[in-house]
Amino acid sequence: MIPFNSRLSSVIQTKHSHLCVGLDLNPEALGASQVSLDALKSHAFKVIDATHDLAAAFKPNLAFFERWGSAGFQWLEETMDRFGNDTIIIGDAKRGDIGNTAKQYAHSLFNHFGFDAVTLSPYMGADSIAPFTSDPEKGVFILCRTSNPSAIDLQNQPIGGECLFDKTAQLCVEWNDNENVGLVVGATAPEEISRIRKQAPGLPFLIPGIGAQGGDLERSMTDGNSNGDALINVSRGISFAGDMSEKAIRSAAQDYVNQMQDIMA
Amino acid sequence: MIPFNSRLSSVIQTKHSHLCVGLDLNPEALGASQVSLDALKSHAFKVIDATHDLAAAFKPNLAFFERWGSAGFQWLEETMDRFGNDTIIIGDAKRGDIGNTAKQYAHSLFNHFGFDAVTLSPYMGADSIAPFTSDPEKGVFILCRTSNPSAIDLQNQPIGGECLFDKTAQLCVEWNDNENVGLVVGATAPEEISRIRKQAPGLPFLIPGIGAQGGDLERSMTDGNSNGDALINVSRGISFAGDMSEKAIRSAAQDYVNQMQDIMA
Repeated sequence: MIPFNSRLSSVIQTKHSHLCVGLDLNPEALGASQVSLDALKSHAFKVIDATHDLAAAFKPNLAFFERWGSAGFQWLEETMDRFGNDTIIIGDAKRGDIGNTAKQYAHSLFNHFGFDAVTLSPYMGADSIAPFTSDPEKGVFILCRTSNPSAIDLQNQPIGGECLFDKTAQLCVEWNDNENVGLVVGATAPEEISRIRKQAPGLPFLIPGIGAQGGDLERSMTDGNSNGDALINVSRGISFAGDMSEKAIRSAAQDYVNQMQDIMA
Repeated sequence: MIPFNSRLSSVIQTKHSHLCVGLDLNPEALGASQVSLDALKSHAFKVIDATHDLAAAFKPNLAFFERWGSAGFQWLEETMDRFGNDTIIIGDAKRGDIGNTAKQYAHSLFNHFGFDAVTLSPYMGADSIAPFTSDPEKGVFILCRTSNPSAIDLQNQPIGGECLFDKTAQLCVEWNDNENVGLVVGATAPEEISRIRKQAPGLPFLIPGIGAQGGDLERSMTDGNSNGDALINVSRGISFAGDMSEKAIRSAAQDYVNQMQDIMA
């Protein structure tokens, strides 16, 4: 039995890649005025096929599937079958509910859909997280300091000389008994990556915000990967790159992998 | 055009009921060792048919549908068709994501499934909430002080003489420009209901935690309904009451409605 955090390290090393390809499959981004679910399905498969050997992880965001209701969840089920076994699949769900309910979400995301890890919100505390961490082979990435402009509304509230996100980071360390807890830390707040790294040494970071959101790739890589692993998520910058051909998508992914390797060289 | 908060008030007055029937349709609660989705579907319809004239609102929790994947979402679609138009339907989803993604969740919950209101997590701040509040006829209930034991982990963190949940309450007031923002405040923290009521006068409260969680009905009703409306949620105490017959379910719902009317008399 290999705990999730160790498996993630091993995949990053084996594939020489810190890239997480985010699947935020926005129909508007495909350009046409009326986009069918079939067109989006084909596009998702194209992105997966073009990048699966370059990516350490894929991160489908559930919102873009739920938009279509049950047909969207069917699409997610089909998409899960397309991923190989050599890549970490993270369900970007940001769930958070009381224990009794969290168990159902864990069943959905881990057992039904088969994700290796999920993103969670910490607002409801330990008992909303525990049902997701009981199996060491499944991982969680807990929202700590997110990449959006309004992240500061709650996350930067001052608590005795620290911020709320510092407290969240400390809780993540407490909750890591099974070596399967990581943190979401946005690339748009680069000073805070190193600060949170000090609070949570050894825990993996999932870093969104590179590309469309304008985050700092260099500091995400150097600070995120000091004393722990960092997965760097790129969504729109890969899924909808250039003319959206398989070639353009692969080229964008390869370019990000090269940039990350150069930074770490 | 009637803003959501006004419509909610009007339904509560017309139906003489503050009861929200929570649909947390846990297969284990049905008792049999192997419960089919069909058995759960029938049970959900039984609960709705037995209580729709007594309830001001229904609150399906999405986790219990998502547990079954696309078949569960089909079931949710069928369930939405069973509710009448004289009851408020709240999607208990506790979503919270960056603006671009929140738009997709809002489309899913309001346009695809047709909920009147949804529950949201505040951890990511204003831009994660805004896509849900742009239509005044659709409402949101934002997690403020939740009913679970670990709620205190983050929500009671001290911020300059207050707690994080006080700050959340103040943000909810700021976000209420369209008169469609309410708060989730647990019945298990009765002192905090009156405290939050002072922070957010006039905003509706959705109060879970009555029944299985052991919350305080009297203070939830008196403090929640002073200077604003309170919806009191009961899930397991109604959906799985007694022998789980339509009669037992209706009787449990009627009993809660009577208790609430007595408290307000």
